[in-house]
Amino acid sequence: MKIEDKIKAYGEKIDTLLRETIPSNKDDYLSEPIWHHLSTGGKRIRPAICLLTCEALGGNTENAIPFALAVEILHNMLLMHDDIEDGDTVRRDKPTVWVKYGLANAVNAGDYMLAIAYRSIISSVMDIERKMKLLDIFTLTYTKTVEGQALDINARAAKDFNVEKYMKIVELKTGYYLAFGLVGGVVLSINDDRCLETIWKLGKNMGPAFQIKDDLIDLTAGKGRGGVIGSDICEGKASFPYAYTLEVASEKEKGDLREIMLKERRVTTDSDIKWVLDLYKKYESLTYSQNYAEKLIEDAYKTIDSLNINDNAVFKEIADFMVQRST
Amino acid sequence: MKIEDKIKAYGEKIDTLLRETIPSNKDDYLSEPIWHHLSTGGKRIRPAICLLTCEALGGNTENAIPFALAVEILHNMLLMHDDIEDGDTVRRDKPTVWVKYGLANAVNAGDYMLAIAYRSIISSVMDIERKMKLLDIFTLTYTKTVEGQALDINARAAKDFNVEKYMKIVELKTGYYLAFGLVGGVVLSINDDRCLETIWKLGKNMGPAFQIKDDLIDLTAGKGRGGVIGSDICEGKASFPYAYTLEVASEKEKGDLREIMLKERRVTTDSDIKWVLDLYKKYESLTYSQNYAEKLIEDAYKTIDSLNINDNAVFKEIADFMVQRST
Repeated sequence: MKIEDKIKAYGEKIDTLLRETIPSNKDDYLSEPIWHHLSTGGKRIRPAICLLTCEALGGNTENAIPFALAVEILHNMLLMHDDIEDGDTVRRDKPTVWVKYGLANAVNAGDYMLAIAYRSIISSVMDIERKMKLLDIFTLTYTKTVEGQALDINARAAKDFNVEKYMKIVELKTGYYLAFGLVGGVVLSINDDRCLETIWKLGKNMGPAFQIKDDLIDLTAGKGRGGVIGSDICEGKASFPYAYTLEVASEKEKGDLREIMLKERRVTTDSDIKWVLDLYKKYESLTYSQNYAEKLIEDAYKTIDSLNINDNAVFKEIADFMVQRST
Repeated sequence: MKIEDKIKAYGEKIDTLLRETIPSNKDDYLSEPIWHHLSTGGKRIRPAICLLTCEALGGNTENAIPFALAVEILHNMLLMHDDIEDGDTVRRDKPTVWVKYGLANAVNAGDYMLAIAYRSIISSVMDIERKMKLLDIFTLTYTKTVEGQALDINARAAKDFNVEKYMKIVELKTGYYLAFGLVGGVVLSINDDRCLETIWKLGKNMGPAFQIKDDLIDLTAGKGRGGVIGSDICEGKASFPYAYTLEVASEKEKGDLREIMLKERRVTTDSDIKWVLDLYKKYESLTYSQNYAEKLIEDAYKTIDSLNINDNAVFKEIADFMVQRST
């Protein structure tokens, strides 16, 4: 079976099990907003990758399911709170939870998802040392992602933003998260600590690489919101090209660029966006960003090659799959 | 030493240790909002009661500290998110975190506190079975409190609100939370499962009793916001007297009462409040509420008497202390 098909099959299994883990009950005022969010789509790729890793390394995937569910639920909890924090009103053509159910229900439903994720791991049947290790990994990933989000929320107002700061944010905000499912898959199979360290490192290569590519898509093709280019500029999102340009532009240009980034979304004009794109062009910021991302992906494959296990094929396959998706 | 002094001493110890658990670092954009909140006061009574229980039942309080810290951090995390959900702008004469640092930082800082609380337990040194049990208790309390909050957020709009529904909300929202520290103290000392069940039951007696008393204070003496009476009516808070009155008033009165409760806070007039107070007087709702709370406290002492342990004195002392504080 091709990896795409395996991931699809595992994703569908997770989707079914999510219905059991979070049963619908309109009267609890929790499952309805949660399912509104979960139904906006998502292919359950993160938990699928966890199960795939576990299987490839000889683990029992049935034992891995509660952790895989927790991976998916944490992911969606973070998105639900991110939508509030970023003021996003639409997710995949549907109103976000805070828009549809109000701020109070959205904050609280996100809190509840975290409780469900912990419960999924705590109530799973496996040896207690391994379970504690998974709880530790879950908490580490959650902690680091929230630390990254704190920096991200406040980045656009920071005067001295640069590539180093960008990398710190995305290593925290996306790096741990990318490795999360793989790490769980390893714990639930070979449970080799040196291998785990390498996988965390892999996350720090690939997470930022994909984030940079995502930043570039917004500036070249648009992010599927009707193909509008530059919505990150309107939102004042501290992207990689923004970080790089702040390092190389003149003082005057930096000042003007920051001013546009700090504008309220509604106030940013088309000519503001054009001005920023022209500035990025002048300093070849998009090419620099693209090359930076490619280098990180190269590093990722080297990290995989350095894995001290018999067979690292599954990690190469997963990396190929993710690189494919990011382009 | 008197119980007040013991609780004070333990509270001060927790306060010092909180500084180590959440070190100040302005650049992380997390510790500053968290300490803004933690510095609004609070006597750290919940963790102190946990330590006191542990000590009285012969446990080692040093081992109990990471859990006691988690109890206090969870409590404050819930308050931080509650302030957002209720739209409260002031806590103990200081602006709430979302007002001072913005909504995004307040949601995210609350999320972070939960991560710190879990980490405090996970990284503690104790036998792994007991640690897993504490994680289970922590997650149960967190889950039930959030479930209660979900019902509470949506209660004032509910047409068929009544005493049964009120009790369900407060058993979830305050009952588990009240027992939480005591339960932890028991696990960290005698670790007797039958005793734990009884303590959870105690929470379901005392949590609602204190909530009803709190509701009554708002309607008789005011809640320390300059002694203004009826701020819960302005906020549309679904109190016990409101729940009871909906059961006994005429259809016309119920309709008018709900209308006032559903008004925006700013629109509620002094004569609205007077009308509600008069209605409560007509149906002797405050007397009924007071008696209901007293009955729950009687039940609580009976629950303590039913404890199957050698010495239940500490629970009586703690109950006395809490009843004293609630009046």
